[in-house]
Amino acid sequence: MTEQGSRLDPWKQSYAQRTAGMTASEIRALFAVASRPEVVSLAGGMPYLSALPMDTVAETVQRMLATEGLTALQYGSGQGDPRLREQILEVMALEGISAHPDDIVVTTGSQQALDLVTRIFIDPGDVVLAEAPSYVGALGVFSAYQADVVHVASDADGLVPHALEETIQALQAQGRRIKFLYSVPNFHNPAGVTLSLERRPQVLDICQRHGILVLEDNPYGLLGFDREPYPAMRAASEEGVVYLGSFSKTFAPGLRVGWALAPHAVREKLVLASESAILCPSAYAQMTVSTYLATSDWRAQIKVYRELYRERRDAMVDALTAQLPQARWTHPDGGFYVWLTLPEGVNAKAMLPRAVTERVAYVPGTAFFADGTGHQHVRLSYCYPDPDRIREGVRRFAGVVQAELELLETFGPYDASVTSDTSAARVQFPSPDLS
Amino acid sequence: MTEQGSRLDPWKQSYAQRTAGMTASEIRALFAVASRPEVVSLAGGMPYLSALPMDTVAETVQRMLATEGLTALQYGSGQGDPRLREQILEVMALEGISAHPDDIVVTTGSQQALDLVTRIFIDPGDVVLAEAPSYVGALGVFSAYQADVVHVASDADGLVPHALEETIQALQAQGRRIKFLYSVPNFHNPAGVTLSLERRPQVLDICQRHGILVLEDNPYGLLGFDREPYPAMRAASEEGVVYLGSFSKTFAPGLRVGWALAPHAVREKLVLASESAILCPSAYAQMTVSTYLATSDWRAQIKVYRELYRERRDAMVDALTAQLPQARWTHPDGGFYVWLTLPEGVNAKAMLPRAVTERVAYVPGTAFFADGTGHQHVRLSYCYPDPDRIREGVRRFAGVVQAELELLETFGPYDASVTSDTSAARVQFPSPDLS
Repeated sequence: MTEQGSRLDPWKQSYAQRTAGMTASEIRALFAVASRPEVVSLAGGMPYLSALPMDTVAETVQRMLATEGLTALQYGSGQGDPRLREQILEVMALEGISAHPDDIVVTTGSQQALDLVTRIFIDPGDVVLAEAPSYVGALGVFSAYQADVVHVASDADGLVPHALEETIQALQAQGRRIKFLYSVPNFHNPAGVTLSLERRPQVLDICQRHGILVLEDNPYGLLGFDREPYPAMRAASEEGVVYLGSFSKTFAPGLRVGWALAPHAVREKLVLASESAILCPSAYAQMTVSTYLATSDWRAQIKVYRELYRERRDAMVDALTAQLPQARWTHPDGGFYVWLTLPEGVNAKAMLPRAVTERVAYVPGTAFFADGTGHQHVRLSYCYPDPDRIREGVRRFAGVVQAELELLETFGPYDASVTSDTSAARVQFPSPDLS
Repeated sequence: MTEQGSRLDPWKQSYAQRTAGMTASEIRALFAVASRPEVVSLAGGMPYLSALPMDTVAETVQRMLATEGLTALQYGSGQGDPRLREQILEVMALEGISAHPDDIVVTTGSQQALDLVTRIFIDPGDVVLAEAPSYVGALGVFSAYQADVVHVASDADGLVPHALEETIQALQAQGRRIKFLYSVPNFHNPAGVTLSLERRPQVLDICQRHGILVLEDNPYGLLGFDREPYPAMRAASEEGVVYLGSFSKTFAPGLRVGWALAPHAVREKLVLASESAILCPSAYAQMTVSTYLATSDWRAQIKVYRELYRERRDAMVDALTAQLPQARWTHPDGGFYVWLTLPEGVNAKAMLPRAVTERVAYVPGTAFFADGTGHQHVRLSYCYPDPDRIREGVRRFAGVVQAELELLETFGPYDASVTSDTSAARVQFPSPDLS
């Protein structure tokens, strides 16, 4: 088979075109480093599961298996457990959504829902609109299906409606085919901002006028610190929105249980796509979630999480205020992330190896843009380390930034072209073929 | 959005091209009918989980969560739990495979492994070779990625090597790009046959000479009734084979835990594709399997399954011999399925509504061909109903066939063009655009 390619990969010539776009993300490369115990990781988005009543969960599962094990361990429906789909309606009702359980598809985490929606809508070269910045895992999916991601400006109130309108008009004038707007309206990953109440109908109206579907991704919506959740965009538009939800942040991610709520005809396609991808989601994981929802006070557990994360948000914001006055950052009122803008001239990607040496990890902003920008930004997460660790992490981080500033003062601004060469081997990010 | 499409589906004009190939399979349409208690289902491939020691499983999981819950409920590695990957080596050693755990990717059932392999190798129009007949779930995946499936003759000893050679030569003469051979070598679904020891190196050699990857799908390999497992093709070729395994038939399918063992460079692509599709497989499900393997006598459990299924195979074959001498069928020495050839002129797909009326369900052979053939064949599964139900099911099935034969005698042969029209609404199958 040597005629097929190099000795290292005999199948090199056999891959599909889409496979060229599959490269490791910065977050992935970081996980290996950040998991060393001496490193304070402000990089990951892992929920703090020590806040779960683990013994209760264990007993719940034991009872579920003993009474319903034959169903839980068997193949199930491609669309997902009917009982769980009914319970998901209760969860979504907290954000004003009214729906029918027939329009829900349970997925292997909401990441699979992202994959399925992209699979049924995207031909290579189609455009996906996304906030600037946008969730790295979604950008990876869009890249894997050879979509062109076009970012739309976002500020402290989330996606900017007039920027959305202008971007759509410019793309349509070029004859581009825009398939959907991907948006994380609540406690944005990574931006830490929330789409304001005023802007929600404006965004919906713009998309509806231009025949563009809204893909509303809402893993953090119930994790607000200061107020009741805003109504989801899906609450105002049944036909114009595919809504994605997840139990990863409100219960536990290791179960891999998420869902999509879609207009009926789209839901049918999603089920067929999911059956092709995995036959059916795990009945075992779904019934674990279902039994947990039925037998525990899950709303109280979400409140526990909220208070925990609020305390950590405060620890991070206070530490940044005290130690990094040269930078700017968003002030999240929910979710897991602060989005930080470094002082002029400091390059987050180039600085990362030094930060790891100083035993602190973060995700450079470049991970959250499909177009190679974002060098001046950093995502800091406060969900997993306790407040003391957060303060220590910010202290180390501020020291690294300070050292970069001193270097800048001595040697002048950083040459980005050099970075790309030297750091490419260790940190890569999918670079969709943007036009 | 009405300008976008019909009132029924406002997004009708927005779907990707691949979505046109996603239609419900015959097995899916059947599941709804076959699950009614008065119907004897010889249709599904559900393992008989009552043979599992459910209380032991429940206690195992309870203990696992109480001691390792923080890991089991958290995000995990995209490639899969390292401990489970070590244990998978022990499972594969039973079929002569020696490998490194780094070359294993854990997937959401082996269906996801099929999806990932197809995703990284198939561009629209590429050719996949598959046995005639072939597994319906794999055909669905190939269709979803717009592959052209070309069937290769199979007989009582499995795939026919000289037919493989001739098919490859003919396709290559046409300039077609053949990406891989998809094969279920052991206790084939649906054919019930096993690739003979003599043919295994021949198949490998042919594929290697032509630079074609072998995708060896082996969910049933450890469920042989009469002998030790044959060595897997992967045991003889590390670089030429991607091997797929599953715990769905040897333990339980509701966990959705399968795996791919691939040449190293291919494995890297599979992990990236899986991270894009689901971020990571469920740590919870993986650690459930891992704890089960570590604390139970899983080899003894497989023996329990084997003896159970052998008894059911005997019940089915004996009942067919007694009641349906007009038909022919394969004699499986493992797995779940008998592949039956109806008497000349009887159409399995056209006969299905009558069979359901007579309270017996099966899968018509057309489900297992990408090219619309297979009307004279039926897949009968003996895995789930007990022997008395199997005998009753075969009795009903034989009665339906007998009635069809009497109709044939009175009215002459069946007009296939009429069937396609009248049955299309209830039973559809993906029809890849075959050239």
